[in-house]
Amino acid sequence: MVSNEENLKKSGIILPEISSPAGLYQPGIRIGDLIYTSGQLPLVGGKLLEPGGKGRVTEAREREAAMAARAAALNAIAVLRSVVGNLDAIAGVVKLTVYVSSAEGFTSQHKVANGASELVGEIFGESGRHVRSAVGVASLPLDASVEIEMIAYSPLSEK
Amino acid sequence: MVSNEENLKKSGIILPEISSPAGLYQPGIRIGDLIYTSGQLPLVGGKLLEPGGKGRVTEAREREAAMAARAAALNAIAVLRSVVGNLDAIAGVVKLTVYVSSAEGFTSQHKVANGASELVGEIFGESGRHVRSAVGVASLPLDASVEIEMIAYSPLSEK
Amino acid sequence: MVSNEENLKKSGIILPEISSPAGLYQPGIRIGDLIYTSGQLPLVGGKLLEPGGKGRVTEAREREAAMAARAAALNAIAVLRSVVGNLDAIAGVVKLTVYVSSAEGFTSQHKVANGASELVGEIFGESGRHVRSAVGVASLPLDASVEIEMIAYSPLSEK
Repeated sequence: MVSNEENLKKSGIILPEISSPAGLYQPGIRIGDLIYTSGQLPLVGGKLLEPGGKGRVTEAREREAAMAARAAALNAIAVLRSVVGNLDAIAGVVKLTVYVSSAEGFTSQHKVANGASELVGEIFGESGRHVRSAVGVASLPLDASVEIEMIAYSPLSEK
Repeated sequence: MVSNEENLKKSGIILPEISSPAGLYQPGIRIGDLIYTSGQLPLVGGKLLEPGGKGRVTEAREREAAMAARAAALNAIAVLRSVVGNLDAIAGVVKLTVYVSSAEGFTSQHKVANGASELVGEIFGESGRHVRSAVGVASLPLDASVEIEMIAYSPLSEK
Repeated sequence: MVSNEENLKKSGIILPEISSPAGLYQPGIRIGDLIYTSGQLPLVGGKLLEPGGKGRVTEAREREAAMAARAAALNAIAVLRSVVGNLDAIAGVVKLTVYVSSAEGFTSQHKVANGASELVGEIFGESGRHVRSAVGVASLPLDASVEIEMIAYSPLSEK
């Protein structure tokens, strides 16, 4: 069985440094067997990765927004690792909530969210099968196109 | 004591077939004693049930949107049953998050959400008393008027 | 070590009476070691506290919206106490979800959310360090500027 960390290496995916929030909250937290992340933006090296432009997503920018969703999910996974030490300690991904900044008439939030779900599948395989909500919001911090929060399962002891 | 499944029969409510998501995520998941559902749309037989029309809800469409919320909640309950096998295994409903696609000036998301909470009450009675957030979003997948996610409690063992 | 209740007294913060929802759902719920609250508005004595005005927040109203976020968080903390009896039974705050009703171009939802996170820090200190999502929504019930839901940790037994 291939491990999550091996999947990561095989795919050539490099987890980013996690950016520390401005002091009042934290990127991730463990409560019992669950890890919760804060909402993650598509920040890469401290800058928004927005190949299609920032702000409200339109039909024309759907594919680029899915790439931004992938970048935000990558940050969430980096947060998971910062909490548990090693991605092989993640036994499953429970839930993604995908907020897409949406122009009037844009109704493909689920396709944008697929950019995040695909990355989760590449790294976690079958154990990455999660539930998901994808909704279109009015705007997001820093004018990002996407914000993603994640809940993962990492049992403290084998039962 | 009347069971959840009996309530369902008595009310003449028929749970729909659950629609399978497009492969990248799943409709519901159990983690420990909790069941999480994916965000559910008011889909009936694969088509949106939107008696008031799709898209952003206005004051004039509040009642119809509450009916759509009921349909989305019914899908969420069908997902719960698909995970636990029998609704009598659901000991409580924990939380509803109700996203309402909202036109400018529409501020009765809580009344739309009541369409979902009422259905939960009909089926689960007192054990269905849940916490709830209702918010107005810019748009939703497929131009739905409502999206609902649910967390329910189903203890693995009697303690 | 200073207790949460002592922090509250020292700061001169008075927790409000919790307003009871309209019967279909409840303000807070305990499931295992977690307490979930319903989405809380900045209601004070049954009226919205909106020093900057109701509805969609603009850059010009950012500071006032942060005060509304503080008021909504105070209501969430009052709900926590109503569930556990005494805030010293809260061992940690897990997560805040902060929905900010946002005008086009308003992209500082995180600064609004700081109004809530700061209050949590004042009362819970280090154990209040939480994860957080802040998103800009189209509108909220009663035309509120902010809605906040909280998850807290209150272990049933010392382990």
